[in-house]
Amino acid sequence: MRAEIIATGSELLSGGVVDTNSVFLAEELLEIGIETSFKTIVGDDEKDMEDAVRTARERVDIILVTGGIGPTEDDITRKALARVLKKRLVLSDDALKAVKAVFKAKGKEYPGANDRQALIPAGARLLRNPVGVAPGFMLVEDGKFVAVLPGVPAEMQAMFRESLRPAIEEHFGGKAVIRRKVLHTCGLSESKVNELIQDILKQKRPAVGLTAGETGVDIRIVAHEGSGARSRSTIERTEADIRKKLGDSVYGVDGQEMEEVVGALLTQRKRTLAVAESCTGGLISGRFTNIAGSSAYFERGVVVYSNAAKTELLGVPADLIERHGAVSREVAKVMARGIREQSKTDLGLSVTGIAGPSGGSPEKPVGLVYIALASPDGVKADEHRFLGTRGQVRQRTAQMAMDMVRRYLIA
Amino acid sequence: MRAEIIATGSELLSGGVVDTNSVFLAEELLEIGIETSFKTIVGDDEKDMEDAVRTARERVDIILVTGGIGPTEDDITRKALARVLKKRLVLSDDALKAVKAVFKAKGKEYPGANDRQALIPAGARLLRNPVGVAPGFMLVEDGKFVAVLPGVPAEMQAMFRESLRPAIEEHFGGKAVIRRKVLHTCGLSESKVNELIQDILKQKRPAVGLTAGETGVDIRIVAHEGSGARSRSTIERTEADIRKKLGDSVYGVDGQEMEEVVGALLTQRKRTLAVAESCTGGLISGRFTNIAGSSAYFERGVVVYSNAAKTELLGVPADLIERHGAVSREVAKVMARGIREQSKTDLGLSVTGIAGPSGGSPEKPVGLVYIALASPDGVKADEHRFLGTRGQVRQRTAQMAMDMVRRYLIA
Repeated sequence: MRAEIIATGSELLSGGVVDTNSVFLAEELLEIGIETSFKTIVGDDEKDMEDAVRTARERVDIILVTGGIGPTEDDITRKALARVLKKRLVLSDDALKAVKAVFKAKGKEYPGANDRQALIPAGARLLRNPVGVAPGFMLVEDGKFVAVLPGVPAEMQAMFRESLRPAIEEHFGGKAVIRRKVLHTCGLSESKVNELIQDILKQKRPAVGLTAGETGVDIRIVAHEGSGARSRSTIERTEADIRKKLGDSVYGVDGQEMEEVVGALLTQRKRTLAVAESCTGGLISGRFTNIAGSSAYFERGVVVYSNAAKTELLGVPADLIERHGAVSREVAKVMARGIREQSKTDLGLSVTGIAGPSGGSPEKPVGLVYIALASPDGVKADEHRFLGTRGQVRQRTAQMAMDMVRRYLIA
Repeated sequence: MRAEIIATGSELLSGGVVDTNSVFLAEELLEIGIETSFKTIVGDDEKDMEDAVRTARERVDIILVTGGIGPTEDDITRKALARVLKKRLVLSDDALKAVKAVFKAKGKEYPGANDRQALIPAGARLLRNPVGVAPGFMLVEDGKFVAVLPGVPAEMQAMFRESLRPAIEEHFGGKAVIRRKVLHTCGLSESKVNELIQDILKQKRPAVGLTAGETGVDIRIVAHEGSGARSRSTIERTEADIRKKLGDSVYGVDGQEMEEVVGALLTQRKRTLAVAESCTGGLISGRFTNIAGSSAYFERGVVVYSNAAKTELLGVPADLIERHGAVSREVAKVMARGIREQSKTDLGLSVTGIAGPSGGSPEKPVGLVYIALASPDGVKADEHRFLGTRGQVRQRTAQMAMDMVRRYLIA
């Protein structure tokens, strides 16, 4: 069973507005076993809207349209839909009653213009709007299920949950069968992950896909079996297979962030942390402290941008900087030891690097970063070479630095 | 001239991920007079991708595809596109050279899997990726302009601006008649801005609208006159009217960020800055240092999360904290003075506040923040009460603190 979601509204095409309705609907549909294969966004143009509905009828079984059912001229969904489905628009008494009731409840005079909102294609079934004016509707034609919902997110969601989802479940005998899980990894390139789990990626069931970004590579698993329980166990099996290949590189699931994971580990292991940053300039401290309750384990941070700050705040000897350069393994180690000692924490984390775009040299190019961790077991430093813009180098460094703490804590 | 943007990636259909690439592309296209009529989102499925490209070819003149050109099995854009356009995929020597060069720059061994990224349809022109691995490409076939860009936003944007936009302008002889300008304000509420410029908001030409967010209130001006020059002068006139009403509250235009504006002022006035943060936990330092060249004026930052850190790093007397609380005007002032003196900078900026969700009390509720600025003219502190989640309070505080520096520098 495949669905297409059509969102209408010119502001979604060129007004800088992002369509979030379809994210909600795709997730809801997935829960009842319906996969969204396409999303289309179309402006307030009748011809384009007709084109979108016609195209969708050719390729999917269920079409959900959001928006374009307000009281104004540019609300074109009803007319376009009626034309494609070859249905007349009829004034629904029930719809008109519902529209008028909203104005009455608000103590407002009823403006005639809203009559338009009571027009629905002949044969369609009304969908009540529990929190707004515009009623929605649904109909089944040539075996295709079509429903229209308001564009205002709160109204759309309430209408979907209250009226449409039950109707879809009834029509398709749907029960939640599709399950999803996302595994977040750090420290491996996309091609490395691809190489390690290529057999799993080639499988058709469950579907497994990769996405790479500044935080690492994400692995999505989508299972579509005969029942929810079977989908869940397929996912569990696949997740276990992937974890066997990738080991500790998997740091979280389903949107968990590195700072949450490391924060939970620090809490659980009763360890405290302080951070000394150069090229990341406060990003690492900023991410750790974004977690509510982080004051229990995050003691302090310093952003030692100048060499004087490195010497004064962390006791990095000026001649060490002169000998090895501020971006060096040696300086990273002294920074980590310095912040740990002065703050009396269990762990001291440091980074020093060249974020770019300038400041690089043939021996020390832009993207060269040293990350060091001081602990009761001594000080360890890693060298990295990151690619990308200044912002990407900084974000990748922050993520990798937090990952170093994570790997130490679970070792 | 009508465009369709096709975004590919199963995570955009059911992974809870929102497609923001098409928002960027639609705005860029609009500037060169090309209207986006459709956006389509399709999963990592070859057949669906073919369907999407075929549909787009029937209804628009220019098709931009983002994503699906990585090195892995589920990157299906090239194959699907080649099939619809009836072109062979050929290994481009130039593309292969570019892909390999990126690995070499990183000092990493080249994994053969990435060869796949050098495949482009016969006759296509290569688009260089200035910040990542995957090259893009473009071709004109049956009068339809088709281009493929990476899905990673930073790569996509850089490639579009550097290579694709010039190619589109050349091909279509595009000239911008629509002009837009956004004015960014800080320190005024949306209703205050609304009240101050209500006459201008009521005008039809140019269209003026407001958006409120964590960085303040943005004012969008869109002019669509007969020529680019006339649109530009309409915008200039309206901008001048707005600036007359809002004065220093306008801090930047067209995506300029506060840290850029303050950084430019510091550079120009040859002033240096150090920052002491509590509730923002490094966000302010992180934003200042996100600007290339910030080491010229940003000397250091400290994140004094614990009271011990406030005392040890900034010399805040323990009994002052006990008497007034860590979140108080008195402590904010001593923090600002402390960071300025120890770092020998011209300016010392400090914040202390309650970001929530816990830690509030009736006298000191969540959202209470003190921001202080120490300068050669003495120390000044402001009290703020911000609303919102922990993340919103932190971001609003960071923005307002940087704005305090800006207002000091231009006074």
